[in-house]
Amino acid sequence: MTWVTGADGSPYGVANLPYGVFRRAEGAPRVGVRIGDFVLDLAGAEEAGLVLAAGALGRPTLNDFMALGRPQWTAVRQRVTELLTDAAHRAAVEPLLVPLAEARMQLPFEVADYVDFYSSEHHASNVGQIFRPGQPPLLPNWKHLPIGYHGRAGTVVVSGTPVVRPSGQRATPQGPVTGPSVRLDIEAEVGFVVGVPSPLGDRVPADDFADHVFGVVLVNDWSARDIQAWEYQPLGPFLGKSFATSVSAWVTPLDALGDAFVPAPEQDPPVADYLCDVPHLGLDLRLAVRWNGERVSEPPFATMYWTPAQQLAHLTVNGASLRTGDLYASGTVSGPERGQVGSFLELTWGGTEPVKFADGGTRTFLEDGDTVTITATAPGPDGTTIALGEVTGKVVAAR
Amino acid sequence: MTWVTGADGSPYGVANLPYGVFRRAEGAPRVGVRIGDFVLDLAGAEEAGLVLAAGALGRPTLNDFMALGRPQWTAVRQRVTELLTDAAHRAAVEPLLVPLAEARMQLPFEVADYVDFYSSEHHASNVGQIFRPGQPPLLPNWKHLPIGYHGRAGTVVVSGTPVVRPSGQRATPQGPVTGPSVRLDIEAEVGFVVGVPSPLGDRVPADDFADHVFGVVLVNDWSARDIQAWEYQPLGPFLGKSFATSVSAWVTPLDALGDAFVPAPEQDPPVADYLCDVPHLGLDLRLAVRWNGERVSEPPFATMYWTPAQQLAHLTVNGASLRTGDLYASGTVSGPERGQVGSFLELTWGGTEPVKFADGGTRTFLEDGDTVTITATAPGPDGTTIALGEVTGKVVAAR
Repeated sequence: MTWVTGADGSPYGVANLPYGVFRRAEGAPRVGVRIGDFVLDLAGAEEAGLVLAAGALGRPTLNDFMALGRPQWTAVRQRVTELLTDAAHRAAVEPLLVPLAEARMQLPFEVADYVDFYSSEHHASNVGQIFRPGQPPLLPNWKHLPIGYHGRAGTVVVSGTPVVRPSGQRATPQGPVTGPSVRLDIEAEVGFVVGVPSPLGDRVPADDFADHVFGVVLVNDWSARDIQAWEYQPLGPFLGKSFATSVSAWVTPLDALGDAFVPAPEQDPPVADYLCDVPHLGLDLRLAVRWNGERVSEPPFATMYWTPAQQLAHLTVNGASLRTGDLYASGTVSGPERGQVGSFLELTWGGTEPVKFADGGTRTFLEDGDTVTITATAPGPDGTTIALGEVTGKVVAAR
Repeated sequence: MTWVTGADGSPYGVANLPYGVFRRAEGAPRVGVRIGDFVLDLAGAEEAGLVLAAGALGRPTLNDFMALGRPQWTAVRQRVTELLTDAAHRAAVEPLLVPLAEARMQLPFEVADYVDFYSSEHHASNVGQIFRPGQPPLLPNWKHLPIGYHGRAGTVVVSGTPVVRPSGQRATPQGPVTGPSVRLDIEAEVGFVVGVPSPLGDRVPADDFADHVFGVVLVNDWSARDIQAWEYQPLGPFLGKSFATSVSAWVTPLDALGDAFVPAPEQDPPVADYLCDVPHLGLDLRLAVRWNGERVSEPPFATMYWTPAQQLAHLTVNGASLRTGDLYASGTVSGPERGQVGSFLELTWGGTEPVKFADGGTRTFLEDGDTVTITATAPGPDGTTIALGEVTGKVVAAR
């Protein structure tokens, strides 16, 4: 129970407490934690001696705080919980609550490297059927390792940032043409944010997942399917992805997701030793995709074939180092049903089956002015539900 | 003519003046410029009021200096030239010369995003013939756009850093196995370093190349061919590349390469408007690859099909922003002859034709303990030659 008005019973109660970076109309960006419809100014709390975090909370990103490591993450979370639940602290803490409407949310962390995986079997199968009809939907390597690639860290933007329609080359029967993408799509994903780095040349075992990963964001990995289809052989996606990747303003700490870990789908064939995670756990995050406000899909993250711990072990098996701020995303989250897919490519089956909206409108891919919002909930303690921060973006015309 | 002993007539004379970051046994990293066999301590020069650069030269990377832009780059270069050529400055400047042997070179810039292109027609054709015999060596998109992908910025290391042999999965007739790579290779490349950023959503025209790009490094994009071959479908190279990418400690400013620009190979079919660079210029950089000291190849950068200005225009045509410290590499530099290739994959034709060394030894791919050094020269003013900083690395056993 918290003394903060309206927070108890909300999906942003004291069992949640995601971290973000905010600023007011005047003032520098600083770390805050969300409680109900308020942001607790953690930088102010640290200045006042209410929280100890080595000065990391007055910074314009979460990176310094994330670099402190799990014992410190846990200690700060415990202390914040104490401040927000013990009425004795109310007088000191209440002046540090900023109404959400007055907080301008910033990109919560400086992205070091951004890796995008491809870990939903349903998504990979759907894409295979759409692009390679009549062939096996999964490529031979897919069940042996979590396929992934590096994306552009510099174009990761915070939720709410407008997305300029990308231009580029696409193939036509008359040859390639250059212009604004005509098959602009989303990818609903879950991203994992690394706090604690690892040395070059070493591996990070799957078991060390929670020592390195600070928390979770929602991700919309905007994708220009026409640009991607023409450019991607043989070195993979490039400009079809690199124009923008949106992340939620709130980073949900792993500590808030204790009740969300669930057994992951069984893996057959058995995986390589370095990919064995015991217990083999996924996360029961229930995503929802809204297209211009209409709920068009509900991707279930619990169906992902590869787990975040396996992805981390794979990412580093070759000795690649981790840095604070590394972001790795799950890949598009798609469940087995049409109403559970995480891309419009799948929802409209390659653009052949338009989505019909309640107002009579239809869509295959994104039009200028369209807004897409991805939300998610997770099981909290005692049958409650917590919310992940939403990721939203509006498409604006190509320049 | 410089008053610095031994510098005139050397490939590091006053027409060169590459930038780097160094430290002495004690003391913090700081910016320096190479002249002959010395490093001029530019941070010291700025502190003494001999050079003006907004305080950017006392920093541990070149990033702040590179962010200042071309007018400042040119002004500092002119001033440094003055200091090193006018004997009137000798008394003040000579104490700031550090013998190269006492300077520990650091990674010269903090890498923002790292992009690797694939712009040598000879390399792409060779790889096509080796991996897809009997099929057209170039894929249909190759002559329409500079193929590229994002690599791992966090594992870019400075020349001299040992390279730990990567482990990972590779395919065998009995199925995938995990272990140290058995086909470890190099890629001799040239990298371009961005100084001046660009806004998200905008394009950078090819003509603006010199406003954004600060200078050039040599790159060894170490590659585990067996890991890459198994993982790369459909999203491109990942762990086969991400374990290490070495760059030279010295960044040669574009201003030093004025005599090295030469007409690039003609392009047929004609390229899209946004890829037209007028004049269409490549760089006459003459690379040399030494394997355990023996010169095994001399890749000619002037043969590259796509120019660095075209690569920059392509990289941003979708509105992707540039950041200070972005590095984009050319892709493996291979000329038309076997003795001009930039990878051992090509030199040994997929491992089927071992290299024979003078001492009787042979190699297909890299063994533990092997050292590879890539050097390059370029035409300087008045028939002289300047050198680019070498990039070297020794392979050490997998952990």
